[in-house]
Amino acid sequence: LIDPDRLRVSFEEYSSIGATDRDGLHRLALSEADGRVRDRFVDDLQELGLSVRIDELGNVFGRRPGTEDLAPVLIGSHLDSQPKGGRYDGQLGVLSALETLRILEDEGIETARPIEIVNWTNEEGARFKPALTGSGTYVGTHDLDTVLAETDDEGTTVAEALEEIGYRGTDPVGPDEVPNAALELHIEQGPRLEEAGHTIGVVEGVLGMAWLEATIRGNADHAGPSPMHTRSDALVAAADVVTAVRRMAGRLDDDVVTTVGELSVEPDSVNVIPAETTFTVDVRSYDDEVVLDAVDRVDDELRAACDREGTEYDLTELWRIPHTEFAPSVADAIEAAADGSDHPSMRMISGAGHDASYLAELTDAAMIFVPSVDGQTHNEREFTEWNDVVAGAEVFARTTRRLASA
Amino acid sequence: LIDPDRLRVSFEEYSSIGATDRDGLHRLALSEADGRVRDRFVDDLQELGLSVRIDELGNVFGRRPGTEDLAPVLIGSHLDSQPKGGRYDGQLGVLSALETLRILEDEGIETARPIEIVNWTNEEGARFKPALTGSGTYVGTHDLDTVLAETDDEGTTVAEALEEIGYRGTDPVGPDEVPNAALELHIEQGPRLEEAGHTIGVVEGVLGMAWLEATIRGNADHAGPSPMHTRSDALVAAADVVTAVRRMAGRLDDDVVTTVGELSVEPDSVNVIPAETTFTVDVRSYDDEVVLDAVDRVDDELRAACDREGTEYDLTELWRIPHTEFAPSVADAIEAAADGSDHPSMRMISGAGHDASYLAELTDAAMIFVPSVDGQTHNEREFTEWNDVVAGAEVFARTTRRLASA
Ligand SMILES: NC(=O)NCCC(=O)O
Ligand SMILES: NC(=O)NCCC(=O)O
Repeated sequence: LIDPDRLRVSFEEYSSIGATDRDGLHRLALSEADGRVRDRFVDDLQELGLSVRIDELGNVFGRRPGTEDLAPVLIGSHLDSQPKGGRYDGQLGVLSALETLRILEDEGIETARPIEIVNWTNEEGARFKPALTGSGTYVGTHDLDTVLAETDDEGTTVAEALEEIGYRGTDPVGPDEVPNAALELHIEQGPRLEEAGHTIGVVEGVLGMAWLEATIRGNADHAGPSPMHTRSDALVAAADVVTAVRRMAGRLDDDVVTTVGELSVEPDSVNVIPAETTFTVDVRSYDDEVVLDAVDRVDDELRAACDREGTEYDLTELWRIPHTEFAPSVADAIEAAADGSDHPSMRMISGAGHDASYLAELTDAAMIFVPSVDGQTHNEREFTEWNDVVAGAEVFARTTRRLASA
Repeated sequence: LIDPDRLRVSFEEYSSIGATDRDGLHRLALSEADGRVRDRFVDDLQELGLSVRIDELGNVFGRRPGTEDLAPVLIGSHLDSQPKGGRYDGQLGVLSALETLRILEDEGIETARPIEIVNWTNEEGARFKPALTGSGTYVGTHDLDTVLAETDDEGTTVAEALEEIGYRGTDPVGPDEVPNAALELHIEQGPRLEEAGHTIGVVEGVLGMAWLEATIRGNADHAGPSPMHTRSDALVAAADVVTAVRRMAGRLDDDVVTTVGELSVEPDSVNVIPAETTFTVDVRSYDDEVVLDAVDRVDDELRAACDREGTEYDLTELWRIPHTEFAPSVADAIEAAADGSDHPSMRMISGAGHDASYLAELTDAAMIFVPSVDGQTHNEREFTEWNDVVAGAEVFARTTRRLASA
């Protein structure tokens, strides 16, 4: 039902764009490498004879007509990566969608519904915050102007970065026709499929999450002549919060995860007591109340640490998205497709956020997961067995045909 | 004995070179601003008719001849600053020395010994590690080639930075004639003179210190789907060490201070578990054994934290300098000068490292401290009352003349 060799060739070629020297991918959203892989993607869509449109946020769509006047099925994922990330995250979802359209074309198969393939802008949220900005704006949850004005660490805005790589499209951001269904394939990025010995994850939902940014302000002073008891050290206070965030997870609920991923120190000089620390907190749970509870606790811990250290703090919410419940109809279609191709599947919840979460606000959506070896992701060791990739792409193609059939 | 108004004008003019918008100074070693203040310093030396020499490390000397064939007295300090540091640190020592030579010239006073004024390269150790590299190389403790090859965060070497600002001199680094004595004025950078209500600190010694750099390596993974118990988070381990370093000081000895001043995280992405943290530890005590003991404890804490977290670490010593005992003869000369000008003085130990520490390895050296309001330094709130500056400069000029008289 798909051509595994062609999929492999495309996978290798796309992976070479922004490759790291350790078989990873460093292709931050709207970077020069992201521009090149988009060019390649657009070429591939045009070669398939699809009509291509690019919206003002750089989301790239290709449309294959259906035989009937029906709402389309939307398939795809994202081509941006984490810094020194892996080659499977996102890219595999785009290439499975591309292979699905290619095989339909090869075999001259027409579908009742149009099929739209998409590459979403800035899924990762690594260079520009928050994550999933392409899909979040498409469904109307994010405000386009706010997203376009977001800056990276160098102060470059999303709008400028889009111009630089030539992907500031002209189409309005949003569906001209609300899709009838949305399907996305992705690597699991966690250990559960592997642990269970299953090839296909039928994703029924996604954890809710919050991203916070905390700034602690102390007092820069000399590391030598400043007695210990006079210090207000912004890093000492931050260390207390990092420790508390780590311990918080298990105390709240079983499925909660809490992470401090970014942290920077000012003035960052060996013999100067840190005056300011800024750090992020990522909190996730399927229970949205628990996420809110964790946010409160982060605030409590900041207050306690700052009371002890004589520092001050700000806490802002960078992003919050409630948990997602995917459409049972699409999940059932995936499960049926997996059964039909004899790949063992299991129902599961995603710990990672995905564009499909925002699409679920608009239409019936669900996702297919394939296993991540050792659960590794967002690093260069990210890996999925090729057999599992092929199995996932097959189930993806089958499910797409099923969804597009009426 | 000095001209306070002229000193004030020079202080304001020098302070304008690399000024921050909050009356601080951002004049990192060998930066463009450091180049401009050096040009101004060389002009001032030439205007005084001094013979100027610049060595291969950019140390700038001006020599005023004596009436007898005797070894010189070396006076001065440094013109580089911390990032967003203060205007008094270092600069005041150079300008007090300049004012001393100006007043001798004005009044046609000759001294038996030649007097050499110096601006040392990279005292702060902020842009290039370690600190005191100009004086440390001059006395032969540091290796010139190693120092020249040291890089800043952008990978620029000391040698390149010297070329860029035109201060890669040709003179060998080191004394052509060993000075008979060395004197440096500096702000205290701590709270003790102010607390005691004294204007002049007669500095008898400097704490020994060690600078360490630790790197912790964990495993980057996704902040969402990675269960808490599978994580090896390099920042969680580092936070434990930051906390331990803070607590360590009081447990070792009363005078010990311990600081983590720099810390950075890789890949530093909000939804990625930190793979690597690098941070510095600054340890100081007058008892060199206690410094070594603290270094061992940092190693113990790293091992314990990495055992708990499943991370690995490296610990390297960036710099170590034993405690300094200054020459009683020079300290006595300072005290006599303070008494002679009716400024209340007290004997004290410096918590900050100074170029005079390295000079003490070569000759009789000591230092004069003036009070720091609130003990603040290495930040833009660094401040010394102008009366105290004038008092310090007076005592400095008197002491210099005393030292140069035979
Ligand atoms: N799949 C993925 O890595 N998404 C980025 C958003 C998130 O942090 O979950
Ligand atoms: N005085 C001063 O700030 N020196 C820098 C070296 C040190 O860290 O003590």
